[in-house]
Amino acid sequence: MVSFDSKDLSTGKLHGYLLSAVAPRPIAFASTVDVDGNPNLSPFSFFNVFSANPPILVFSPARRVRNNTVKHTLENVEATMEVVINVVNYDLVHQASLSSTEYEKGINEFDKAGLTMLKSDIVKPFRVAESPIQLECKVKEIIKLGTEGGAGNLVICEVVKLHISKEVLDDNEMIDQEKLDLVARAGGDHYSRAKSGFFKVPKPLRTMGIGIDAMPEAIKNSMIFTGNDLGMLGNIEAFPTDEAIADFVKSVGEHHADIKEMTHREKHKMARNYLSYGDVDSAWKLLLS
Amino acid sequence: MVSFDSKDLSTGKLHGYLLSAVAPRPIAFASTVDVDGNPNLSPFSFFNVFSANPPILVFSPARRVRNNTVKHTLENVEATMEVVINVVNYDLVHQASLSSTEYEKGINEFDKAGLTMLKSDIVKPFRVAESPIQLECKVKEIIKLGTEGGAGNLVICEVVKLHISKEVLDDNEMIDQEKLDLVARAGGDHYSRAKSGFFKVPKPLRTMGIGIDAMPEAIKNSMIFTGNDLGMLGNIEAFPTDEAIADFVKSVGEHHADIKEMTHREKHKMARNYLSYGDVDSAWKLLLS
Repeated sequence: MVSFDSKDLSTGKLHGYLLSAVAPRPIAFASTVDVDGNPNLSPFSFFNVFSANPPILVFSPARRVRNNTVKHTLENVEATMEVVINVVNYDLVHQASLSSTEYEKGINEFDKAGLTMLKSDIVKPFRVAESPIQLECKVKEIIKLGTEGGAGNLVICEVVKLHISKEVLDDNEMIDQEKLDLVARAGGDHYSRAKSGFFKVPKPLRTMGIGIDAMPEAIKNSMIFTGNDLGMLGNIEAFPTDEAIADFVKSVGEHHADIKEMTHREKHKMARNYLSYGDVDSAWKLLLS
Repeated sequence: MVSFDSKDLSTGKLHGYLLSAVAPRPIAFASTVDVDGNPNLSPFSFFNVFSANPPILVFSPARRVRNNTVKHTLENVEATMEVVINVVNYDLVHQASLSSTEYEKGINEFDKAGLTMLKSDIVKPFRVAESPIQLECKVKEIIKLGTEGGAGNLVICEVVKLHISKEVLDDNEMIDQEKLDLVARAGGDHYSRAKSGFFKVPKPLRTMGIGIDAMPEAIKNSMIFTGNDLGMLGNIEAFPTDEAIADFVKSVGEHHADIKEMTHREKHKMARNYLSYGDVDSAWKLLLS
């Protein structure tokens, strides 16, 4: 381990570490207008959802580390307390990146990035027609976190209207994550295309897993199982019954050598195989046979 | 487009839409202690970095949509104003998921998830030894966003100490995103492994791209170019000079049929080929030849 007190690091270095450590970050493609109605558009990855009731998104147009100037987006939300947050999918990446160029005040990034302004229903800022989800927001509060370069500004937004492209909805009118094809920011120049890395973990919330502490020592301390293997094994509600184990041994016996003669090591390896298919039940029956 | 007023949606439905729309979300594996020092550990994906100076992370242990109860993590940070935020990499996913089980107060999720408690330097909560980056934080403020089920609570944390595993550092002591191998949450049961979806986009900040509005009509309105293609083409500072174009035509002429006789369509297709390799310079020289 390398350890640093935050106060001993330069803002630039700390900025770099935090942006690599907290990732991948979703992107708010924020559309605002100034007091005269001139549009502005810029992406922000200091962004997330934080509440469903009320529906709250927060993004942070930070003061620039380099010269302590602020972004037009911040000036605009301070003046109008309105923003449309559009999501960024894979097809929009280069245009979103282009719009983050520091064009002068008054330059319309919709034009620069070749994107289409769509009138909103409730707020003044325009929606990005090319974005598959557009969220009209009223700004509730802006919290300044500091006054120096690198200081963030929490823009606390309440979503008042959602627009979702039919192309990303499934038959139940829910959002299909594969069709949506979102991208996120990570450290350095890295972007991450979410769906390339999709995998599923069954939700543990309703069941009460036995936990790794409740496992036999030989399993808990196995040299074969990884932390992920143990995590899967710990997420069962109860050990299988003796009867279920006996049935399992009988059914496997038809295809496999005598389980009773397997060593711990052999059983753990075979159990890992079951786990790799998500078959936690068979893994446990084998381990306890 | 399907459009909804937020107030017309149930909290459950709105929650589902927002969690799918704002993704992938980084994960805070939050370690806290109660007033008696009993440890608690739970993952949260309403989380991000928002400022480098001061270094601020925000996460939200929301009131449960289902029964409007609050999480032990929230009670603990309210009581002690301290937390260690550990990052979650691919090797930790199942253990992090297991620790999100709603065990009773007083149950130590470090034990349940088979994770190792590591003493912190500045704050009382323990670090997760298995996590490659551990961030000791003082809580500056907790902002309650509502009182009903689904209401978030912004826990505003200042990072006071960073611990980074040497295994994820490169030769310059910067964090290597591939080695770090972070995961994030998306809608439904989806997780996303960031590095599976990594790609790079050159940062546009220091240059001032000509923008898509400055391009010849035939290119801007091409049926061949996607938005991403135009975004890349718009991110040059200036068109290539006549001399550079003439040199390009000469050099390509040695390997290729006469460029002068190509149609717009043929040029656009060949330019797309250059763009697919990130060669924006050659794409422009071809297009303007």
